[in-house]
Amino acid sequence: MNNNGGEIMDISARNQLNGKITSVELGAVMANIKIEITEPNVITAVITKESAEKLGLTEGDDVCAIIKSTEVIIGK
Amino acid sequence: MNNNGGEIMDISARNQLNGKITSVELGAVMANIKIEITEPNVITAVITKESAEKLGLTEGDDVCAIIKSTEVIIGK
Amino acid sequence: MNNNGGEIMDISARNQLNGKITSVELGAVMANIKIEITEPNVITAVITKESAEKLGLTEGDDVCAIIKSTEVIIGK
Amino acid sequence: MNNNGGEIMDISARNQLNGKITSVELGAVMANIKIEITEPNVITAVITKESAEKLGLTEGDDVCAIIKSTEVIIGK
Amino acid sequence: MNNNGGEIMDISARNQLNGKITSVELGAVMANIKIEITEPNVITAVITKESAEKLGLTEGDDVCAIIKSTEVIIGK
Amino acid sequence: MNNNGGEIMDISARNQLNGKITSVELGAVMANIKIEITEPNVITAVITKESAEKLGLTEGDDVCAIIKSTEVIIGK
Repeated sequence: MNNNGGEIMDISARNQLNGKITSVELGAVMANIKIEITEPNVITAVITKESAEKLGLTEGDDVCAIIKSTEVIIGK
Repeated sequence: MNNNGGEIMDISARNQLNGKITSVELGAVMANIKIEITEPNVITAVITKESAEKLGLTEGDDVCAIIKSTEVIIGK
Repeated sequence: MNNNGGEIMDISARNQLNGKITSVELGAVMANIKIEITEPNVITAVITKESAEKLGLTEGDDVCAIIKSTEVIIGK
Repeated sequence: MNNNGGEIMDISARNQLNGKITSVELGAVMANIKIEITEPNVITAVITKESAEKLGLTEGDDVCAIIKSTEVIIGK
Repeated sequence: MNNNGGEIMDISARNQLNGKITSVELGAVMANIKIEITEPNVITAVITKESAEKLGLTEGDDVCAIIKSTEVIIGK
Repeated sequence: MNNNGGEIMDISARNQLNGKITSVELGAVMANIKIEITEPNVITAVITKESAEKLGLTEGDDVCAIIKSTEVIIGK
């Protein structure tokens, strides 16, 4: 976690999983980011290339995968 | 995983985290479900009460938390 | 529907519309997939290129468009 | 379609399925609306109770289920 | 607002912010659109390139940024 | 903004609109929160009751409405 312009705030999104970036793939508009949260769980996040660049995301970065609870589907 | 009407299919959602339900809270329309994926990570899912009942979700169930990659925000 | 690694599971997403893929367009990170569900209804899905490739999506495939009910907006 | 305050506009959401409301169930904050788009396809939409009331949604209404293409998951 | 094929309809999405497009960036599948709603607030929307072209989005257009209330996260 | 357990982090969500809460309505599972961002723009956010309580959201609070750019639809 860094503090480049970051603000101290709590957010309502219930799911905040800490992990490390294992890959960053940039397209023209979007970027595909892989985050290893716990072996063997990997989270794939697709964000704007703009965000990936503003946050300076690179392999090895410690990041947090944030997911609002209404976005989760349950399979059983 | 059970097979009550389930179909054999792969789905495009990249994030499929296996875990166990630790709590089910029903409202009039929605339900709040807690899924422990790996100590100490807990996923909160808000789904319809209708779905929670159709899937028969109860504490201790082995389930899968499914999240499309476009829904993930990254914090750093 | 195939069973390449698929699991037998029910999912909480209420909307599961069967149809046939009529076009697959790949970008660098994302893919735009058209699914004809019933004449003249066509569903457009944007998923990762990675998912499109892992599922081997091609024209003519029988697929299911899955949509969580919280994602639907109503116009009247 | 009515014109109570409605505006003439096109929207970017690719998926706009016409149908008829078959049930409206109100909770304290949310509402669960069933829309039959084509036999036997029914779309479930969860919207705020506030919206359901402002649009005056009732059984038999002709409505449109609007879904952004990034919200669609594909199962195969 | 134009009326090229637009319909007179109210939509359930609670958040409809009027603004002006300040930039359009096209990728292969997706497009990144900036909308200035009120100084200094700018909304970034990522939609399909297909939608950007069908709506003919260009700098200076008066548009409306539409956001379903379940998609909003609160930071405090 | 407070710092009760908050972390110093930047997040990838492009849309972060500052405003003040004007109403909080709690249901059994969900909560409907109104945030005035700039006169006359009001953002409606539906979050879990659990989050509303953990953040201690009340009228008059300065908060930030966070929206991922893929969730924005454009009307023209």
